[in-house]
Amino acid sequence: MITCGIVGVTGYAGLELLKLIEQHPTIRLEKVISDSSAGMTLSELYPWLQTGPKILEPFQADALDGIDVLFLATPSGVSADYIRQLASFPGVVIDLSGDLRLPSGLYETWYGKPPVTETIQREAVYGLTEWNRELLTKAKWISNPGCYATAVSLALLPFVQHDWIDPAHIIVSACSGITGAGKGLSEKTHHAKSNENVQLYKIHAHQHIPEIEQTLFHMGGTEATVSMSTHLLPINRGIMATITVQPNDHVSEDEWVNRLQNAYMDEPFIRVQRGEPEIKSTVGSNYCDLWVYKEERTHRLTIVSVIDNMQKGAAGQALQNANVRFGFDETLGLLNQPQYI
Amino acid sequence: MITCGIVGVTGYAGLELLKLIEQHPTIRLEKVISDSSAGMTLSELYPWLQTGPKILEPFQADALDGIDVLFLATPSGVSADYIRQLASFPGVVIDLSGDLRLPSGLYETWYGKPPVTETIQREAVYGLTEWNRELLTKAKWISNPGCYATAVSLALLPFVQHDWIDPAHIIVSACSGITGAGKGLSEKTHHAKSNENVQLYKIHAHQHIPEIEQTLFHMGGTEATVSMSTHLLPINRGIMATITVQPNDHVSEDEWVNRLQNAYMDEPFIRVQRGEPEIKSTVGSNYCDLWVYKEERTHRLTIVSVIDNMQKGAAGQALQNANVRFGFDETLGLLNQPQYI
Amino acid sequence: MITCGIVGVTGYAGLELLKLIEQHPTIRLEKVISDSSAGMTLSELYPWLQTGPKILEPFQADALDGIDVLFLATPSGVSADYIRQLASFPGVVIDLSGDLRLPSGLYETWYGKPPVTETIQREAVYGLTEWNRELLTKAKWISNPGCYATAVSLALLPFVQHDWIDPAHIIVSACSGITGAGKGLSEKTHHAKSNENVQLYKIHAHQHIPEIEQTLFHMGGTEATVSMSTHLLPINRGIMATITVQPNDHVSEDEWVNRLQNAYMDEPFIRVQRGEPEIKSTVGSNYCDLWVYKEERTHRLTIVSVIDNMQKGAAGQALQNANVRFGFDETLGLLNQPQYI
Amino acid sequence: MITCGIVGVTGYAGLELLKLIEQHPTIRLEKVISDSSAGMTLSELYPWLQTGPKILEPFQADALDGIDVLFLATPSGVSADYIRQLASFPGVVIDLSGDLRLPSGLYETWYGKPPVTETIQREAVYGLTEWNRELLTKAKWISNPGCYATAVSLALLPFVQHDWIDPAHIIVSACSGITGAGKGLSEKTHHAKSNENVQLYKIHAHQHIPEIEQTLFHMGGTEATVSMSTHLLPINRGIMATITVQPNDHVSEDEWVNRLQNAYMDEPFIRVQRGEPEIKSTVGSNYCDLWVYKEERTHRLTIVSVIDNMQKGAAGQALQNANVRFGFDETLGLLNQPQYI
Repeated sequence: MITCGIVGVTGYAGLELLKLIEQHPTIRLEKVISDSSAGMTLSELYPWLQTGPKILEPFQADALDGIDVLFLATPSGVSADYIRQLASFPGVVIDLSGDLRLPSGLYETWYGKPPVTETIQREAVYGLTEWNRELLTKAKWISNPGCYATAVSLALLPFVQHDWIDPAHIIVSACSGITGAGKGLSEKTHHAKSNENVQLYKIHAHQHIPEIEQTLFHMGGTEATVSMSTHLLPINRGIMATITVQPNDHVSEDEWVNRLQNAYMDEPFIRVQRGEPEIKSTVGSNYCDLWVYKEERTHRLTIVSVIDNMQKGAAGQALQNANVRFGFDETLGLLNQPQYI
Repeated sequence: MITCGIVGVTGYAGLELLKLIEQHPTIRLEKVISDSSAGMTLSELYPWLQTGPKILEPFQADALDGIDVLFLATPSGVSADYIRQLASFPGVVIDLSGDLRLPSGLYETWYGKPPVTETIQREAVYGLTEWNRELLTKAKWISNPGCYATAVSLALLPFVQHDWIDPAHIIVSACSGITGAGKGLSEKTHHAKSNENVQLYKIHAHQHIPEIEQTLFHMGGTEATVSMSTHLLPINRGIMATITVQPNDHVSEDEWVNRLQNAYMDEPFIRVQRGEPEIKSTVGSNYCDLWVYKEERTHRLTIVSVIDNMQKGAAGQALQNANVRFGFDETLGLLNQPQYI
Repeated sequence: MITCGIVGVTGYAGLELLKLIEQHPTIRLEKVISDSSAGMTLSELYPWLQTGPKILEPFQADALDGIDVLFLATPSGVSADYIRQLASFPGVVIDLSGDLRLPSGLYETWYGKPPVTETIQREAVYGLTEWNRELLTKAKWISNPGCYATAVSLALLPFVQHDWIDPAHIIVSACSGITGAGKGLSEKTHHAKSNENVQLYKIHAHQHIPEIEQTLFHMGGTEATVSMSTHLLPINRGIMATITVQPNDHVSEDEWVNRLQNAYMDEPFIRVQRGEPEIKSTVGSNYCDLWVYKEERTHRLTIVSVIDNMQKGAAGQALQNANVRFGFDETLGLLNQPQYI
Repeated sequence: MITCGIVGVTGYAGLELLKLIEQHPTIRLEKVISDSSAGMTLSELYPWLQTGPKILEPFQADALDGIDVLFLATPSGVSADYIRQLASFPGVVIDLSGDLRLPSGLYETWYGKPPVTETIQREAVYGLTEWNRELLTKAKWISNPGCYATAVSLALLPFVQHDWIDPAHIIVSACSGITGAGKGLSEKTHHAKSNENVQLYKIHAHQHIPEIEQTLFHMGGTEATVSMSTHLLPINRGIMATITVQPNDHVSEDEWVNRLQNAYMDEPFIRVQRGEPEIKSTVGSNYCDLWVYKEERTHRLTIVSVIDNMQKGAAGQALQNANVRFGFDETLGLLNQPQYI
C-alpha cells in the first residue's frame, strides 16, 4: 500500500483521478490539493460524489511528508511552478500537464511559457506506458503524455518502428470531446456555442504535434513529420484520430490487422478491432482501440485510434504509470468497462 | 411563375425543399408526392409545419400535367425507377439522389443497383451550380450533387484547376450531421447509440469519392485521387470537410486566402472566411464557407469547407439549380441566414 | 417604412432580433448598439452572418435622432439604466428585459435591483400581444414579456378568464433551452456540465412567477397562485410548460380542445394542436403551440405550451409588438417555419 | 458464490446487468440468453466490451440447471411468456419488466397484454428494496420496480407514510433519458427527431402511474392519486421527477430536509441533498438523490428525485434485490460513483 496526493482536484483530470484512486486497492489517497478551493471539503465541491469528509488543502511543497506519489493534474505553467518547488520532494511526481514533455526550446515555442530546468526535463520519463516501461520503473518525474499524443503515438509507433510506412506522409484528423478544452469558462465551451457544432482549433499549432514527432523519433526510431488537425466535438469525452498513411509494403488489409495485433498482442489496454470505429468504444475505460483499413484504389492505409481523453488520455494512463512505477499489476484499478450507453 | 412537384416529401431533403419552395416568390408548389404516405395531408404528416391542406399523392408519371419542374427527393434506386418512367415528361427533372451522377459502370460498382439508361445519364447535367451554369440553363435532367461531393469539390476545384496543388495527395477527413444518414430507422441513428458518439462509416467505400474525382476531372481538368473518411456526428445538420493537400506554389497563407477569394469573388453563396472554422457557420443556409491555412513546418495546406448538408448539400442547391435553369435570380428564395444559435 | 435601433446586439435576443429585422419589409435597421463591443463591425462580431459593414456604436441617449423604435435587448438592470436616460427620447422603446414588467416593490423583491421610476413603470404597456393589442397601439414604453411568462400565460389565460379552472391549483413544470440562461459564461452553461444533464434552477424564485400571476389577474381577471419549477435543458432553444390544473367543468377532452381552439381562433401565431407535444414544434418560429388533455381518473387537465424562447419568448414577440404599435400587419417578418430537423 | 443467468442480454437493461455482474464478487454469470441473437458471442455483440468468449443461448426453461437466480431483462409480454415456462424452475427469478407488478385486471388495462397467473402474481414480491427487504429475503419471484415508479415512490413514501402531505394532490412531472424508450427502433428515438427535442409521451397513460399508487398504498398505507407527465429527453440516461405536493404540517424547509434525512438515514443508496438538483448527480450509479424545497408563498413542497434509469431504475436495483435475496451485503458490486463528466 502506498499513499498519494492529487494536486488540482477541481479540474476534470483531477476529478477523474480521484474517482479512479478511490477504487484502487493499493494506493491510498492521502491529500487532495487545490489552491483555488482550499478549505472546502470534497463533498461540498462534488455533492454528487460519494466520498468522505476530506478537506482540500493549498499546495505546499513542504507539507507532503509520507506521500509516495504526487499527481499534478494542473494546467501547463502551473505544473511547472509546482515542479520547481518539488526539487527536494523525495517521492515520485507524475505531471499530467505538458510541462515535462518537451525540451526547453520546443516547450517555449509551443507553450509560450517559461520551461522547467533542463535538468528536471532531462530526468523526466515520458509515460507512454506501453513503450517505456523500463525507464518508468525508476522514474522520479513522470511526464504523462498528452491526450491526442497518446492516441496518435500508440497507433503509429508499430508502423514507424518497422518502417511499414512513409514517415513523410502522415496526415492526422483528430477530434476531441469538450472536456479536452478544460473546465475553465470560455465562449468555445458555452453550450449554446458548442452544441450542434464542430469547432476546428489551434490549426497547425497544437502543442501535441511536436510531442508526437518526438515520440515517433525516440520510441519509433524514425524522423517523421505529422500534420494534425484538431476538432472540438459536442460530446463530453473521447478522442478519435483518423490517420492516413502511405505504406511501404503492399500486403492485404488482413495482414495489416495481423501485424498490428501482433505488435500489441500482450498489451492489456490496447485492443485491435475490426468493423466500424466509434469514439465511444472506449469512453469510461482505459482502453485504446485501434483499427486499420487498406484503400485498394490508392494503396493508402487508414488507421483509426480511439481513447477516452480523461482516462488513457490523462488520469487512467497516469495511474497506469503509477502502477508500473511501484511494481503493481499494471491494470490495478483500471479495468472499468466502457460506459457505451 | 412556374410550378413544381416534390417527390419524396416525407424524407428530410423533401421536407427541406418543401419549406424552401413555400417561401420562393416565383415557384409554386403544385404537387407533393409520396408513395408511402399518399392520401395523408401535409399537416397530418408535419403538424408543426404551418401549411395548407395539401394532400400527398402517389407517384404517377402520367399525372404531372402542368408541372414545370419535378424534384426527386427520393433515395438512390427509387429515383432511377421514377426517372425511367419520366422519359416523356416534358418538364425538367432535378434528382437529388445519386442515380444520375455516375456513368453506368461506376454507378453499379459504387451503388450496387441497376443504373438508368446511358442516354439519360449522358443527358444529365451535373448541378454543382457554381461550376456548370451554362449547361444547367438548358438541362432536361439535372443531377444534384452529393452533400460531401459539394463541400469537397467547391473547396478543391480552384486548386486543381490552376494546378496549385499535387493531385496525387488529397486527403479528406469529412464529418456529417445525422440527417445525412436519412430518415430510415437504423441502429446507427438510434439516439442512445449515436449520442455522445462519432461513428466512422463506409470506410474507403463512400459513393461520393468517385463523384468528387469525376468532378475534379470534368470541371477542374485534373486527374486526382482522393482519399476520404466520413464520420457520423451527433448533431442534426452540417458537413465539415478538412482537406490536407501539398501545394505546388510556396506563397504565403494570405496569398492562398486571396487566391481563393478571387476564385469565388462573384459567387453569392461561397464565402471565404478567416478565423477558426465551425460547422454551424452555414447550418440553416445555402452558403458554403471556405478557409485555407498554410502549415509552415510541412508546407502543406489545410482547406476547410463547411455546408449545411440539407441546403447547399441537397435541397438548397437543387433550388439554386432550378433558379438557374428557369432564368431566375440564382439567390431567389435562398437567402436565409444561418441559424447558428 | 420606419427605422429602428437594437441595443445589446451581442446577446442572444439581440442577435435574433437582428436576423428577424433584416428580413422585415417595413422596418429598417439603422443602429446596432453595444457598449461592450462598440467599434467592431457586425461581420467581425458574427462572421457567419451575411450582413453589411455596419459598425456597433456605444449607447448614447442623445444620438438616436430619426430612430422610430429602440429595442433594448439588454439584461435586467442594464435596461433600467438606459430607460432612465431615454425619458426624452421621442420614439418607442421596447424592452426585452424584466425591468418594466413589475411594479417597484415586486421588482425589487424578485430582481434585487433598483427599479425604474413608478411613472415609467405605470406608462409601460405589457406586450403579451394577443391580450393587449389596443393599449399597444399607443404605447411609448413596451414591456416585452418573459419567455416562461409568455408560454404559461398564453396557455392559462383562456382558462382563468372563463373560470374554467380552480385558480388555487395551478402547477407548472417548465423547461428551457440553454439560450434562456444567456450568453454570459457560467459553470451551468459549460458544455461538459450542461450536456447530458437537466438542471433545476431558481427554485420557487423565478422572477417570471409574479409576472404570470400579475398577467392572470390583469388580463384574465383572476387572482391565481402559481407554482412553477424551471429546468435547464441540454438543447439550444425552446420552452415547454407542462401545466396541471383542476377544472371546474366536467366536459370531454374534445370539448376542452374546442374551447381552446375557439379562444384563439383568429390568432395567427397560436396553434392548438393534438397528438404528442414536442418542444421543437415551434423552434425557429414565432408560434405558440398548445395542447390540452383530460385525465379521466383524476379529472385533472394537463395543458402543454411550447414556444421558441428566442422568438415568441423574446425577439419574435418584440417584433410582433412593433408591428402592432406601428400599424403593420402583425405577422410581417415573422412567418418563418419551425426549423424542426 | 452463486450463479446467475441473464435473459435479454441484447437490451439496454440486460447489458447494464451484464456489466454490473461481471464486477460482482459473489455472483458468477453462468448463462447469457437471447432468443434473437442466440449463437453469437458476447464479443461479437459488443465488440467494445472487454469480456470472455461467452456464447448467447436461446431461452430454454429446462436448460437452467445450476442457475441460482435468473434475471429477465426482457420486455413486458416476453417476460410473462418466460415466467409461465419457469413455474418449476427451482431458482429465484427477478423480472425487470412490468409483468409481475400489477394484479391481473390492472395489468390488462395498463399493459394491454395477457397477464401471468394470479398465483404467480400474488407470490411475486415487489422489489423496491428499501421498503420491502423482509419479504425479499424469501422471494421466489421478484418484481423489479419500474424506473419512474422507483424515483417517485422513494421520494413520496416517507411523506405519505407519516401523513405529512395531502394524498389527493400529488403532481409529478418526470423526464427520462432516451434509454428509457428501449433499444427497439422507432421514429421517437431517431437521433434527428429526438435531438434538440423534448417529447411528451403516454400522456395520462403511463403504466407506472398505477404502480406508484399501489406502492403508496401497500408500503405507505395511503390511498393516493397521482398525476404524472412523462417527458423524453435528448440524453442517454437519467430520470428526474419534480413532484409538487401540499403539506399537512407547516414546518420550515430545514425541518423537511431533516425529516427526509431521518427517514433514509441508514440507507446506503439514498442521499438527501441540498442545492440545485441535476439529473446527472446519479447517472452511472445506483444512488437515488432526493431534494425537498418549501415554497413560502404557496406553502407547497417541491420534492425532486433523481436516479439512473438503467441502474437504480432497472439493473442496479435488480442486483440490489439479488444481494438481499441471497443474504449478501446489499451494496456488493453496486458502489460505482456517478459518471458526471
